[in-house]
Amino acid sequence: MSVTPLPAQPRIRVPLEVYYFDTDAGGVVHNIAYLRMIEIARTQLAASLGWSVEEMNRTGLVPVVVRTEIDYLKPARLGDHLTVMAELMRLEKIRFFIRFEISVSGGEPVFVRCTQTMVTVQLPGGRPQRIPPAWRDAYPQLMANS
Amino acid sequence: MSVTPLPAQPRIRVPLEVYYFDTDAGGVVHNIAYLRMIEIARTQLAASLGWSVEEMNRTGLVPVVVRTEIDYLKPARLGDHLTVMAELMRLEKIRFFIRFEISVSGGEPVFVRCTQTMVTVQLPGGRPQRIPPAWRDAYPQLMANS
Amino acid sequence: MSVTPLPAQPRIRVPLEVYYFDTDAGGVVHNIAYLRMIEIARTQLAASLGWSVEEMNRTGLVPVVVRTEIDYLKPARLGDHLTVMAELMRLEKIRFFIRFEISVSGGEPVFVRCTQTMVTVQLPGGRPQRIPPAWRDAYPQLMANS
Amino acid sequence: MSVTPLPAQPRIRVPLEVYYFDTDAGGVVHNIAYLRMIEIARTQLAASLGWSVEEMNRTGLVPVVVRTEIDYLKPARLGDHLTVMAELMRLEKIRFFIRFEISVSGGEPVFVRCTQTMVTVQLPGGRPQRIPPAWRDAYPQLMANS
Repeated sequence: MSVTPLPAQPRIRVPLEVYYFDTDAGGVVHNIAYLRMIEIARTQLAASLGWSVEEMNRTGLVPVVVRTEIDYLKPARLGDHLTVMAELMRLEKIRFFIRFEISVSGGEPVFVRCTQTMVTVQLPGGRPQRIPPAWRDAYPQLMANS
Repeated sequence: MSVTPLPAQPRIRVPLEVYYFDTDAGGVVHNIAYLRMIEIARTQLAASLGWSVEEMNRTGLVPVVVRTEIDYLKPARLGDHLTVMAELMRLEKIRFFIRFEISVSGGEPVFVRCTQTMVTVQLPGGRPQRIPPAWRDAYPQLMANS
Repeated sequence: MSVTPLPAQPRIRVPLEVYYFDTDAGGVVHNIAYLRMIEIARTQLAASLGWSVEEMNRTGLVPVVVRTEIDYLKPARLGDHLTVMAELMRLEKIRFFIRFEISVSGGEPVFVRCTQTMVTVQLPGGRPQRIPPAWRDAYPQLMANS
Repeated sequence: MSVTPLPAQPRIRVPLEVYYFDTDAGGVVHNIAYLRMIEIARTQLAASLGWSVEEMNRTGLVPVVVRTEIDYLKPARLGDHLTVMAELMRLEKIRFFIRFEISVSGGEPVFVRCTQTMVTVQLPGGRPQRIPPAWRDAYPQLMANS
């Protein structure tokens, strides 16, 4: 992990546009397309916490999605300017949880709420590993009693 | 809705192959790719229950995903022959629930378990509608006390 | 390569449906979605010629797309039943060429015509290799004077 | 079309990252993923030339891809920082041509070169229309003798 000090709040906001390839014949953003937006925000959140793709390539330690819960509240459309908020929500020994919210940039409405359960694995092989120790030091309030 | 008699069990199994575009640099099927497989099975399940895409085009009544819960249990790989099981699980007035399981064809392991909450909406506009009445007649055991 | 005799004509037809995730807000199949259909047909064509994904996994020899030319003639829509025709068109020492046509099953109209230039590479590393010798024996009429 | 003066050169450069969903089990960016990057750059080029998605929504005039030629020169990988260059290349009465180049940000190597042929159509219906008149006034050197 990089030695850059971690941010006080493990949270980022990523502005994203809607492209035609995100939409479907119902005239709205397709339910699967939001998962790409969530992966973009998750990758940028990890980088902001010292775990960039370069770091993943170098160490073989990668975060893997083991569960997604996603609620589609309202449909976004072409021309909407979106913000994806991603926030580290809770830390366990092996697993960590990220919360996402996709909304119109600057406020309402909220289109999507999502929580993903992540596990750190070592490639190749995929053996689960402890979460980054720096995260536990920086965010003790997120540690579950597990 | 078509007048074809509905099947005794509202359940189908769809065989699917893994293509390169389904995989990622971790060497396994990407988490988002399973949602395309789930949509393929969901569309074929709906057709088997009298609600084909032609019917959707004709009536403007379409099923919309409002919630997905998906657990990634084991990673599938190129060359795996998959089966997606999709089953109507529970009916409410406005919402219905579909359960999915993606496994190796013929048995173990199970790669993914998923539940989606669906709402019927009328296009254009997207106003929620009652679920198909034929489903309530055919599958009273799936009706929730709601 | 498998020892199964190769078909007299190196050509297949793959029936495919249009799903919501293939479409865009213009109400038609999105231009990128046809490339997934083409990859499905290409993979099945390769398997019919003794070069299955299992074979690729075993030997590390994989076909790689180095050029795509694709013409979008008419837009396909939800509910259209498509057939993707894929045909080995020409063989060189290192490269081979596949021709695709996506049409309504059973005839007209044709939605897409495409040609892809492929190179066989050895993974890992990606060094180009000779095309499968069995193809040259089976289809001498496709050999270019190159 | 917006009345903002058009740029002297109809060309933009869009920085993009590689995400896991862009890659495949060969360890590189999948050939289809570059087409999403190209659509992002194309949409931003159109916006810089007064033809934003909001404008498309308002007028129903949208650009449609009728042909793509794409050469895959070298594979990009996770952790590469990419730049997509998009440039209006040639104008006809009905069609226009955009040239793309995807490279490492700041120079070499070039991963992909692409040309797309576009037609302006009026939605709904899809009837072809003249290209934006402002483009012909601003870029007479791109007009073909057609």
